This record gives sequence, C-alpha cells and structure tokens, in this order.
Amino acid sequence: MTQARLNVLAIGDAIVDVIASTDDDFLTAEGLVKGSMRLIDAEEATRLYAHMGQARETSGGSAANTMAGIAAMGGRAGFVGQVAADQLGEIFAHDIHALGVEYETRPLDSAAPTGRCLILVTPDGQRTMNTFAGASHQLSADALDPAQIADAAILYLEAYLWVPDGPRAAMLKAIEIAKAAGRKVALTLSDIACIDKRRDSFVELIRNDGLDLLFANEAEILSLTGESDFDRAVAVFADKVPLLVVTCSEKGAVAIESGRRVHVPAARVEKVVDTTGAGDLFAAGFLFGQAGERPLEDCLRLGSLCAAEIISHFGARPEADLKALVK
Amino acid sequence: MTQARLNVLAIGDAIVDVIASTDDDFLTAEGLVKGSMRLIDAEEATRLYAHMGQARETSGGSAANTMAGIAAMGGRAGFVGQVAADQLGEIFAHDIHALGVEYETRPLDSAAPTGRCLILVTPDGQRTMNTFAGASHQLSADALDPAQIADAAILYLEAYLWVPDGPRAAMLKAIEIAKAAGRKVALTLSDIACIDKRRDSFVELIRNDGLDLLFANEAEILSLTGESDFDRAVAVFADKVPLLVVTCSEKGAVAIESGRRVHVPAARVEKVVDTTGAGDLFAAGFLFGQAGERPLEDCLRLGSLCAAEIISHFGARPEADLKALVK
Repeated sequence: MTQARLNVLAIGDAIVDVIASTDDDFLTAEGLVKGSMRLIDAEEATRLYAHMGQARETSGGSAANTMAGIAAMGGRAGFVGQVAADQLGEIFAHDIHALGVEYETRPLDSAAPTGRCLILVTPDGQRTMNTFAGASHQLSADALDPAQIADAAILYLEAYLWVPDGPRAAMLKAIEIAKAAGRKVALTLSDIACIDKRRDSFVELIRNDGLDLLFANEAEILSLTGESDFDRAVAVFADKVPLLVVTCSEKGAVAIESGRRVHVPAARVEKVVDTTGAGDLFAAGFLFGQAGERPLEDCLRLGSLCAAEIISHFGARPEADLKALVK
Repeated sequence: MTQARLNVLAIGDAIVDVIASTDDDFLTAEGLVKGSMRLIDAEEATRLYAHMGQARETSGGSAANTMAGIAAMGGRAGFVGQVAADQLGEIFAHDIHALGVEYETRPLDSAAPTGRCLILVTPDGQRTMNTFAGASHQLSADALDPAQIADAAILYLEAYLWVPDGPRAAMLKAIEIAKAAGRKVALTLSDIACIDKRRDSFVELIRNDGLDLLFANEAEILSLTGESDFDRAVAVFADKVPLLVVTCSEKGAVAIESGRRVHVPAARVEKVVDTTGAGDLFAAGFLFGQAGERPLEDCLRLGSLCAAEIISHFGARPEADLKALVK
C-alpha cells in the first residue's frame, strides 16, 4: 500500500452554524431539549430563527469541524459535503479552504439552500442544535472522487449523514472504495437520535468488519448497545472494532485497542463558554495523533486538548493556534 | 412638539461583517493600511476574501451597530438601510429585529447583493476594513418613511453613506423632514476618507445649522478643519454645532456644549481583542444618555463603557448585558 496523500478524508454535513445566546426559559418555551440535536424543515427553521436573538455565523458541520481541526494542527485533511450555490455555501467553502482542507464538492444549483444549524447556547455553555440540513442531505455518490478516497489513510464518516438514504448510499460506496484501497474506515456516532433511526445498519456495519475505528460518547455507546452499564456497553463492541474511542465529557476519554484500555482525564478549561464542537475537535486531535503514529495515550491527550480549546469560546472552529497547542 | 416614539432613528450602511484574524505581514503583502476603511468593488471583494483566513460573520454597519447598542440598553431605536433579497440580507434583518430595533426598509431585488465588510483583525486588536457596499449604496429617498423620521427625537446619520449620491440625497431629504418636525439631527464623520471626498458638503451642512450634534474622532476633526492642533480644531466647530463630541481612543472623550467642555477618560479594558465598533458603541452610549436627559458627563461615561465592552471581543455588536452595564 502506498503512502496516502491525505491523513484523513471526511464525509459529512456541510453546514453554517447560526449561534445565539439564550436562557433556559427560551428552551422551555420552545419545547427544546437542552443539549440535543434535532432536524428541522425550512418552515421551522424560519420560525425558530425569527424567535432567536442576534446571532453570529461560523462554518460548521461535525466532520467538517474535525477536518478544520486536523488542518489547523498541520495535518492533511480533505472533506466531502454538499452545499448549494448561494452565499452560505460560499462562506462554507471559503472557510474550509482558508484552513487548507481539500474540498472539491461542487455546489448544487438545487432547490434546497445550504444547510444551517440554529444553535442556542445557554449560560452553562450547553448547546441545543436545530439543523436545517438543506443541500447537505442531497449529497449523492456522484459527488465522490474515488481517487481522493483511495488516497486518504483514513476515511472518516459522520453518523448524522448516515440517516438520509442518498448520503448513506454515498458513504457505503466510499467505504467500499477505501477498503479496496486498503485504507482504514472510521465513524463517529454523532447523536443518539441517529442511532435510534439506523441502529440495525450501524450494528451490521460493525459486525461485517466495516469499521476500523469507532468514536462515540457515553450516551451513544449505551444507546447503540442497549446496555445501561458503561463498562458492559464498551465490552459489547471492544472486540468488534479494532479501536473504540469513547468520550465522557468532564470525566475524560477512554480508548480500547486490541483489549488494552487507556483512559485520560479531560483537559482543564477555565470557563466553558459553548460546548458546540467538543466531540468534533476531540476526534480531530485523536485522528491527528493517529496520523502521526503516536501512542494511544498521546492521541487521547491531543483529543482532550483540542476539545478544551473549542469549548472555551463560541463556535466549533478553532481560534487558538492549535499547532502551538499540540507541541 | 409631541413626545417622540423613537429615541433615535439612524440612516446608514446595512452590512454584514466578515471578520478574520490576521497578522501585520498579511496587511503589508496586501498593501492595506492598518486601521483604515476602504471601499472595494465586487471583484476585489472576491479576491481578498479568497486570501483571508477562516472568518466569522456578524451583522454590522456603523450606524446600525449604534442602534443595536441603544436597543440593547433598552432604548427605542430605528434603522433605515438597504439590503438585497439574499441570505446576507436575511441575516442583517434578523439580527437588528432580534434586538428590538425598528427596521422596515424593504430588501431590493437588485443586481447588487447585500453589502459586506471584510475585516482583518491584527493581534494588537486593530481592525482594517474593506467594504463592498453592494445594495447598501442603492438606498434611495423612496425608502424613507416620513412619519417614522418625524417620530424620532434624534435623526442619526453616518458619513459613510454621505459619499454616494443616492443615499446622500435620501439623507438630505430626511434632514428636511426631521427639521420640519422639530427634531434634532446628529452626524458621525465615520472616516477621514469620507471627509476627503465630501469636505465641502459637511462644512456647508454645519454652517447652515443643519446639525445639532456632531460625532468625530481626533483624526476626523483635524481632517475636517484642516488644523494640526486638536484644541484649535475643536474651537473651529465648537460654536457652530450645539453639541460636539470627539473621541480620542485610549485618551477618552470630550464634549463641548454651549461653550462648556467636559472630558472623561476611557473606560478600562482588560484585553483589546477587536476595536471594530468602538466609535459606533461610544455613540450608542452617548445617545442613550441623551435620550434619558442625563448630564453631559454621564453621556460621555456611558459612551466609554459601551466602547470598552465592544473592543473586548470580536464583532461590533454587544455581547454583554448592556442594560446591567449602564446601571
């Protein structure tokens, strides 16, 4: 197998985040579950946006944030995700290019505008996400470049995009190409709502040795396995994926590789401003460590450092000098 | 004269800010003058944007920021400014509405997209602005609502918009309406480039008793008068406008009313992150004080507090609870 041009190529939602500060009363009045992610349609997006306070916009998308983090650390990252030919699509493409991420997905001249995520941040730093997927869910297998996939050491998939049929078909094709090229496949479970909708296909993917690396948080691994005990849940998949990584918020993160279990505590954060992107940037640090063939402990530590940086400010794209941070 | 429904109604650029961190080398390479504002065309906007780093977007526009500040303090503010019927126009309208500013200017289905300002922030917190005015400069007198102007205690104009012919004509008509209704007219000089282009008409406006309140910074008052000495420059206009307010960055601010000169020092700022909007929010605090008929010293102090808040973070719209701040 030849040396890969890219360390990681991700497929995910291409989304612009619309972030507004709010309070718990607003979430209650709107019937929103704090810390959750839900998909909304154009009508609900318009309605909720009109109720939200003044916002700031930054490029987002879970796997896109992860690639942004890897590039910010000096890694070679690529991204595949669908935007429309509109102003938000231009913003998304500009930002990911500005960081040096390879991004060649052509904007769609379609009816659906570029996707956006209305994010409400409460004073405790928790984020409640309302995603209008828009063009993002119109990603099709036609948008894939097989040569690009074959030239990435790791193919990284986000479960958010595993739910809609077209993007899932694209991801299945991408897995096929990556496997045929002898590359690794990683998946992040994204959210328990995604697991609820596609539990069988996730389990099938894992059973068929489709995954080399699985990222999950505590709630997701419990939901996927149906277990109520964390250690039992981890045990269910620990021997079915070569490398399982589970983040547990302020309790740190755990990795299990070939039966060896490693834990690192969470990195210290002075003040949690906005937890949006914590998991995304954890994955960035971890994958960057993997790309550099660093020991498992180091990979976890890099993940924790990146997560700590991102939750110390608004937005899910790094603001600090991540290159300096990882040194 | 009846009590006015609005404390202040502003006419200004309706702009979305696109803010990226950069370093001095980038400014040098691009031939940009640190701290300046320049107007750019669509082609240059596309070229410079492609070179800029990852950005965040927030609603901006000088006078619009001032109205945002007044509304955030609990004042009754209105805004007139032109956006296009596009996504950035929707963002602008959303943000100003979300703060409770009255904003009724209909978006234009024109060729020019909503204006944006590419802002480069250096590590010293200074901002260098590159404005693609877009639809903003297509404001015409047709967009004015005479009843709205007559129902605002102060009409507040931004000099940025005094440069293009159509918007200047709209502003001149607005001044006429305000004067006829017995309201006050205020103007901010915005930038020395604006003064260079329209010096004669500013001087004429002041000479004809067109202004009740003039906002300027040190460089602007020197440029307008052609004087090199600050005190002499202030003396030139001090008896020609009922109230002259001059901001001097870290040296504080001065107001001269009916021959009485008052100075307040700048409010303390822990770390200057981004000076974008300092003048805009100073004007917000000052005008809010005027609306509440507070003493001149208090108005200056409110201006300084608001300016200090805005330069402590990225973006020119308030993030802190300004209502609490002014108490």
